[in-house]
Amino acid sequence: MTDTVLVTGAAGFMGSHLVDALVNLNFNVLAMDDLSGGYRDNVNENAQFIEASVTDHETVNRMFAEHRPKYVYHLAAYAAEGLSHFIRRFNYTNNLIGTVNLLNAAVNYDAEHFVFTSSIAVYGSAPPPMTEDMKPQPEDPYGIAKYACEQDIHQVYDMFKLPYTIFRPHNVYGERQNVADRYRNVIGIFMNQLMQGKALTIFGSGEQSRGFTYVGDVAPVLAQAPMNSDARNEIFNLGADTPVSVNELAREVGDVMGIEPEIRYLPARHEVVHAYAVHKKVRDAFDLPEDYETPLARGLRKMWPWVQEHGARKTPKFKNIEVPKNLPGVWLEE
Amino acid sequence: MTDTVLVTGAAGFMGSHLVDALVNLNFNVLAMDDLSGGYRDNVNENAQFIEASVTDHETVNRMFAEHRPKYVYHLAAYAAEGLSHFIRRFNYTNNLIGTVNLLNAAVNYDAEHFVFTSSIAVYGSAPPPMTEDMKPQPEDPYGIAKYACEQDIHQVYDMFKLPYTIFRPHNVYGERQNVADRYRNVIGIFMNQLMQGKALTIFGSGEQSRGFTYVGDVAPVLAQAPMNSDARNEIFNLGADTPVSVNELAREVGDVMGIEPEIRYLPARHEVVHAYAVHKKVRDAFDLPEDYETPLARGLRKMWPWVQEHGARKTPKFKNIEVPKNLPGVWLEE
Repeated sequence: MTDTVLVTGAAGFMGSHLVDALVNLNFNVLAMDDLSGGYRDNVNENAQFIEASVTDHETVNRMFAEHRPKYVYHLAAYAAEGLSHFIRRFNYTNNLIGTVNLLNAAVNYDAEHFVFTSSIAVYGSAPPPMTEDMKPQPEDPYGIAKYACEQDIHQVYDMFKLPYTIFRPHNVYGERQNVADRYRNVIGIFMNQLMQGKALTIFGSGEQSRGFTYVGDVAPVLAQAPMNSDARNEIFNLGADTPVSVNELAREVGDVMGIEPEIRYLPARHEVVHAYAVHKKVRDAFDLPEDYETPLARGLRKMWPWVQEHGARKTPKFKNIEVPKNLPGVWLEE
Repeated sequence: MTDTVLVTGAAGFMGSHLVDALVNLNFNVLAMDDLSGGYRDNVNENAQFIEASVTDHETVNRMFAEHRPKYVYHLAAYAAEGLSHFIRRFNYTNNLIGTVNLLNAAVNYDAEHFVFTSSIAVYGSAPPPMTEDMKPQPEDPYGIAKYACEQDIHQVYDMFKLPYTIFRPHNVYGERQNVADRYRNVIGIFMNQLMQGKALTIFGSGEQSRGFTYVGDVAPVLAQAPMNSDARNEIFNLGADTPVSVNELAREVGDVMGIEPEIRYLPARHEVVHAYAVHKKVRDAFDLPEDYETPLARGLRKMWPWVQEHGARKTPKFKNIEVPKNLPGVWLEE
């Protein structure tokens, strides 16, 4: 019998690649998404698409009652760190209440494993490189929500014995990335800006660095977690080892697109300057090859044809800013 | 001009004593409560009562727009640690989303100080005595929610410069305690059980200990926080220094009521065994007298006449259990 698994955020960027990986592993995949950030056509046609929000607990419960997924992969989130200061209620509702709805249903309907994508944001501005044994100290509501989810998932295991695997992926890019999102995913934003003939916008000096991670290195690891006993009830950093500055990234993106980018430097915003992590733990537990990491230039060359084909899209403004005070001006422009 | 201040949870036990203290300090007090756990007649008649829930952000915003409170004292919460495992969504909605609604409004309407009652639950089962410099490690959704609030309040200060004072009170008892609550407040539960001629129910051996704290020692400290520069952006444990076991408490309550209690021991539940804290920081910052702490026997003798006058009430069952699995059987009895 084919096992049924649930992926939330399944029409999103990372989620849709995970759905592909799970379909390839011959699972019966329930692909759930509210299409607030994802696209229906991202979803593998061999998966069963369910349009619903994780914040709608009645629908979540009905879906679990009907399908009883064996594994839950919870990727749905609104992942705008910088913006989360200005949309606290939206942030905690989507990122924490949504997670709790899934945990309740997973316990009530006897799921066997819960995979959760947390974030490197839980580390806040701890001195890099980040390792999993550091005590989280998030510095924005997004990171606080992810950290609360991690703690809650651990308590669910303690009380109800639902095993889990938590990943802290970071700076993932690749095909199907939503380049229409003005608040996050710097690589998508850069490609979109260049396609529209605009200057690249960089907050601060551009010397802030990140370990940009190709999505093809992430999805197979997420997919395997419930079947890997070394990953049971563990937390893993997940992403590229090599830090790259935003200025260097701008040059690489320009190279791949064959455009000499113009850069518009904006006032620094409230963000962590250097965020990169150690990934020894995931490499050991998942037995990954030494050449596992896709270099940035190669990943960008895989991503760019997809972006070309799908075109640049007008970026919508987030509608429900809760606190306008101190909101970076560029986010107010039409 | 009289300054306006807002108290949430104002019809509750601790909140109503705080309202009294603020009325005595000649503030214009907005006393907000949704009456889910509190009583209208707890509220000082010189305060302006507003029946509303902190989870209703539109009402919260309207109230701030109209009254523009200078100080916000946010005490509203659903404080059932043990039960919070079974009502995760309710817990995070009330305790975290409610707090965030107030923080957003406090920033948007230029409040000058935010006082928050967190809980000793943020410490989890850290080895006692707890001190404020210990890194929180909550072990139930209630404690996780309170810890997330603490982190969020700190980030609100960082981004918007709203000063705060956070208290971690513990095991507060006294007049107006809701003895009709079957899930929390062991002293109220004991008095109620004895008045109904029932045995006292104790989870586990009864040797678990708590620092039971008389409410008259708590309310004046909360009230003073915004006016005390030593309390600005600080976190304080707040409560009695002396740990008392639940068995000892049962004897003391019996003594005050003149009843030899019968005790029904129930299976231990998922809770911290010894929770007590050091209060040096609050004693230093608030310059409290050495004889500040009300001894348990004296506090109980102040509380008991009030309970006698108001009688024992049938305890309602919590209606919306989200996860029935592993729920302690006694909570299912009618």
